[in-house]
Amino acid sequence: MQEPVKVVIALGGNALEEKGLPPTSESQMNVVAKTSEYIAELSCCGYELAIVHGNGPQVGRIILASETAKDVTPALPFDVCSAMSQGYIGYHIQQALKKALSKRGKEIPVVTVVTQVVVDEQDPAFKKPTKPIGPFYTEQEARQLMQEKGYQMQEDSGRGWRRIVASPQPLDIVEIDTIKTLWDSTITITCGGGGIPVINTQEGGLQGVAAVIDKDLAAERLAEGMAADILMILTEVENVYLNFRQPNEQKLEQISVQEAEKFIDEGHFAAGSMLPKMQAAVKFAKSKPGRKAIITSLYKAGEALEGKTGTVIMR
Amino acid sequence: MQEPVKVVIALGGNALEEKGLPPTSESQMNVVAKTSEYIAELSCCGYELAIVHGNGPQVGRIILASETAKDVTPALPFDVCSAMSQGYIGYHIQQALKKALSKRGKEIPVVTVVTQVVVDEQDPAFKKPTKPIGPFYTEQEARQLMQEKGYQMQEDSGRGWRRIVASPQPLDIVEIDTIKTLWDSTITITCGGGGIPVINTQEGGLQGVAAVIDKDLAAERLAEGMAADILMILTEVENVYLNFRQPNEQKLEQISVQEAEKFIDEGHFAAGSMLPKMQAAVKFAKSKPGRKAIITSLYKAGEALEGKTGTVIMR
Repeated sequence: MQEPVKVVIALGGNALEEKGLPPTSESQMNVVAKTSEYIAELSCCGYELAIVHGNGPQVGRIILASETAKDVTPALPFDVCSAMSQGYIGYHIQQALKKALSKRGKEIPVVTVVTQVVVDEQDPAFKKPTKPIGPFYTEQEARQLMQEKGYQMQEDSGRGWRRIVASPQPLDIVEIDTIKTLWDSTITITCGGGGIPVINTQEGGLQGVAAVIDKDLAAERLAEGMAADILMILTEVENVYLNFRQPNEQKLEQISVQEAEKFIDEGHFAAGSMLPKMQAAVKFAKSKPGRKAIITSLYKAGEALEGKTGTVIMR
Repeated sequence: MQEPVKVVIALGGNALEEKGLPPTSESQMNVVAKTSEYIAELSCCGYELAIVHGNGPQVGRIILASETAKDVTPALPFDVCSAMSQGYIGYHIQQALKKALSKRGKEIPVVTVVTQVVVDEQDPAFKKPTKPIGPFYTEQEARQLMQEKGYQMQEDSGRGWRRIVASPQPLDIVEIDTIKTLWDSTITITCGGGGIPVINTQEGGLQGVAAVIDKDLAAERLAEGMAADILMILTEVENVYLNFRQPNEQKLEQISVQEAEKFIDEGHFAAGSMLPKMQAAVKFAKSKPGRKAIITSLYKAGEALEGKTGTVIMR
């Protein structure tokens, strides 16, 4: 019997939220239900799946609520808000995906594992935080928070002051052994939002930090850790483009690691958007012969796995 | 080789929070770190553990923050707040317990599984909600919420109006198969807060509801589902008493299911406090010969497992 193909799926923001709709839980559940139909199809084709998802807007709103209510109940730190967003989003996906699978006669467990991801305290990103999170403040409030809590804050395009945190590289997935144990029996939702960022402490043990880990880079770590065959990054576009939305735009289909690295070096991809996806794809494709990374849209995921579309990066 | 003894531990509120301290995340982590030292000792004695915890104060504060900030970001429904509390508390326990185990040279995975627990939509508890949750409202606000959202609300001891939800019986643990898969390799934190309450829908699939499941009764379902040997309910007292804090109080040590049922019928135990613990204990001890339930304090858990203290209920 052929070994089943193991796929790590990284879900982009559009798999969880629809632009223009109010960001309620009900609205998220409707989008997640649609997303789950596509994922259930992949599972029914025989692929073994693990699922990583983003959490940017959700964790932002959790922090916003927590900070807004801070005179009524103590505000929660970033790592806890990240853990809470994993509970929130993971619960929705596990409920909706289980239903989509049952509808297709496939009874397979779907669970969310609360996941910590280790980053290096010495990561240069901590010297230069770039990710704005949480509510907007006045300059006076911002200066007070910088003094009192040691936050780094910056003015955000005339809309007020916001806290900024680092986006360090993910190193290790703390719960990887458990995820491996579950791989062949269960669809595991893990590394939500890139994982709860933690550092190794001097006295042993881990400690949460305020940081945002890129979910595609975390998915890459997961795919390597699990010895997956395919890392599939799902986003809003069916293919990656060079010179995107310009007259000379060029669709990328099958490309080599070397080509992908050249395009990255040439600055084709936007930081915080296609760049980390391409970096994650290259890193995974390079990690071992036979491994490939696919960047495509949720709606084309099935066709992309059959080799019919998407941007595929291989050695 | 002897089979390891499987123990489901249900942690009471005092394992997560210290009375009189501000209910911050940092304060919770300090208490969880101390709690984890006791649990790590049990693991090092060779017991195979799964951990259930309460979430009453935590989910209350999550709802409070969410409702307080509702004009800034949409309030989240009860089931989502419950899922978020599992992420929050589970993250703290998995981080602290892993550290306490490592310190003892024991490397074993500790993970939180986001857990749904099925309740019956026809459970009589839904006709008579009893659990107050979330913020206090004025009578006018309360009447508006009752009309607009269909909430049940009641006046709470002169302090204002609060929403009340049902406390139905837990039936099935949705993620039980995964928890079973992990049992012999991993310490799993599951059914946090009694589990996210869900009902079976007519069109198939599950749906979250606003309800509070008793965590000791959920732990009992887990212990049966896992075929555990011991259900250990940890609370503030070393033993259960009859006529507690009265001149004729009587400590319970080893008692039979029949005795326990008689004491329950005689009304010795307070609803929402010792009563559900005794009910859960009896239910588990009755479920199969050889199974026993222990009610004791966190600090005496080790001695109680050796048969030296605690209240033990057996067939």
